[in-house]
Amino acid sequence: MSETKSEASPETTVLVLDAGPPTPPPRLGSLTGRARVLHADESTLAGQLPLADVLLVWDFTSDAVRRAWPGEGRRPRWVHTASAGVDHLMCPELAASDTLVTNARGVFDQPIAEYVAALVLAMAKDLPRTLELQREHSWRHRETRRISGTRACVVGSGPIGRAIVRTLKALGITTALVGRTARAGVHASEDLDRLLSRADWVVCAAPLTDETRGMFDVRRFGVMQPSAHFINIGRGPLVVEDDLVATLSKRWIAGAALDVFEHEPLPADSPLWTTPGLLVSPHMSGDTVGWRDELGAQFLELYKAWESGRQPVNVVDKKRGYVPGH
Amino acid sequence: MSETKSEASPETTVLVLDAGPPTPPPRLGSLTGRARVLHADESTLAGQLPLADVLLVWDFTSDAVRRAWPGEGRRPRWVHTASAGVDHLMCPELAASDTLVTNARGVFDQPIAEYVAALVLAMAKDLPRTLELQREHSWRHRETRRISGTRACVVGSGPIGRAIVRTLKALGITTALVGRTARAGVHASEDLDRLLSRADWVVCAAPLTDETRGMFDVRRFGVMQPSAHFINIGRGPLVVEDDLVATLSKRWIAGAALDVFEHEPLPADSPLWTTPGLLVSPHMSGDTVGWRDELGAQFLELYKAWESGRQPVNVVDKKRGYVPGH
Repeated sequence: MSETKSEASPETTVLVLDAGPPTPPPRLGSLTGRARVLHADESTLAGQLPLADVLLVWDFTSDAVRRAWPGEGRRPRWVHTASAGVDHLMCPELAASDTLVTNARGVFDQPIAEYVAALVLAMAKDLPRTLELQREHSWRHRETRRISGTRACVVGSGPIGRAIVRTLKALGITTALVGRTARAGVHASEDLDRLLSRADWVVCAAPLTDETRGMFDVRRFGVMQPSAHFINIGRGPLVVEDDLVATLSKRWIAGAALDVFEHEPLPADSPLWTTPGLLVSPHMSGDTVGWRDELGAQFLELYKAWESGRQPVNVVDKKRGYVPGH
Repeated sequence: MSETKSEASPETTVLVLDAGPPTPPPRLGSLTGRARVLHADESTLAGQLPLADVLLVWDFTSDAVRRAWPGEGRRPRWVHTASAGVDHLMCPELAASDTLVTNARGVFDQPIAEYVAALVLAMAKDLPRTLELQREHSWRHRETRRISGTRACVVGSGPIGRAIVRTLKALGITTALVGRTARAGVHASEDLDRLLSRADWVVCAAPLTDETRGMFDVRRFGVMQPSAHFINIGRGPLVVEDDLVATLSKRWIAGAALDVFEHEPLPADSPLWTTPGLLVSPHMSGDTVGWRDELGAQFLELYKAWESGRQPVNVVDKKRGYVPGH
């Protein structure tokens, strides 16, 4: 591919979008002598973009790239985002350009799979209620659910969805994986409603694209069993949040957990905080101790390939909005 | 074994200790014509014991058998308890007798293993804190722990301990199983301190015997890593509760979860309810929907063997206090 041909040199400029309190990317010191590293935040990105050969989107909570990209001047030849999703940076101009886009595919798979297992087990074993009763010093025995032999439907057949399937299977859960198109071990999206209707656990791990936006709406929640639980660790806008609030309030499904939201951080006055049966966590499912270091190391691996003119891994299909699967 | 020789007949009397609000055992109707079924509670047990050929200890929270057994008169030839532990019924007179004792080995293995996995994952992923922050409508991102690659030490090599090991291994945790004596896949108790000192997760699934009572005391907690978590799903008196409170208060270990207690139900004024880093649940780790039905069905299976003069499974070694392992 022509866009992987690199002319990296000590004059190469790597621009890092790392605004805000999260720590700057580790390990970039090893680029000394190989590139010039500049830093930008949301307010300075547009002005600095024409200077950059490479853009590292370290602050992946920002949509500054999507806003700055259509502007004037030279554009980076390569954009890497320290996230699995690319929805925050994609715009038609970037999609149509020759610029290579890569993502952090691989870093979050196992941590997120464990997080989903934690949520499934917490729901099955009624842990939130146990903690509530502990606060009241109240001894109240309940019968809980056995998870082995139950069914899960995992939506999103990328490496995160596949890691979730592996982990839930290891716990004795029968799983179905749903992707855009059918292939070995993956159901096509036409099968989704049928699979949802018999699932005990529905896990959303899909990328956010025009096709998937709002896919979990009142109709889809209505297809699920009253005993079903829904988990979203993908992106907030995959779910119509008002529909989920209504669904839980009417007890059409038994419970849900959201780690991602339409607006992050979730405003203090959001009804989601207090919706019955809903567990809210602050977009942390993949972030285990050492994750920033792993993300930094991964960028340097990709940089090494790029500067020597090789094709980096994790190249995003910009039209589809994710790295095509195997 | 001489005590398995049965002279069961329609004149056989099955006495059921089923006091208290929990529902009576299901399925006993199928004994109609095969045996006479009497019911006792804690206050009437001593008087009815001489009438019984078979005693079914359905109310396994009661120690009425241990108190009534040393009395006068004929004693049952077979005692079955609907629990894994037999500590609540054993007394020297029963241990020295010819009476066969069987337990509910097998029913609780998988549910308890899942419950332990739920606790490990909840602790690793900081779920109790997430629920606290949700109550405060507070968005606070934290880094959590990855469990794959961590180490667990499971104490108690019976079927429950072995099911826990299988489940934790499936989640990528390196596990060591500790029993009374070394055998294939099982470490001897002499290895315990060494294994405790390197474990991230310590799980107590041991039977309560004279040897194991109070085994988790301040010295043993002191051997563990400051980052370690302790879980007890065995029996309350395996743990010196005051020592655990002191250990957690001084942060010698990172956290703990108790499902069983010296005194059950746990009194409302117990300091355990409010000990920092301690998760309290009401002796429910093995009790998944349908468990009472499974326990009733299991007793009837054993009864079928016993009435036809065959050796029932799950025969407890009354000196050791558990069913000897394979």
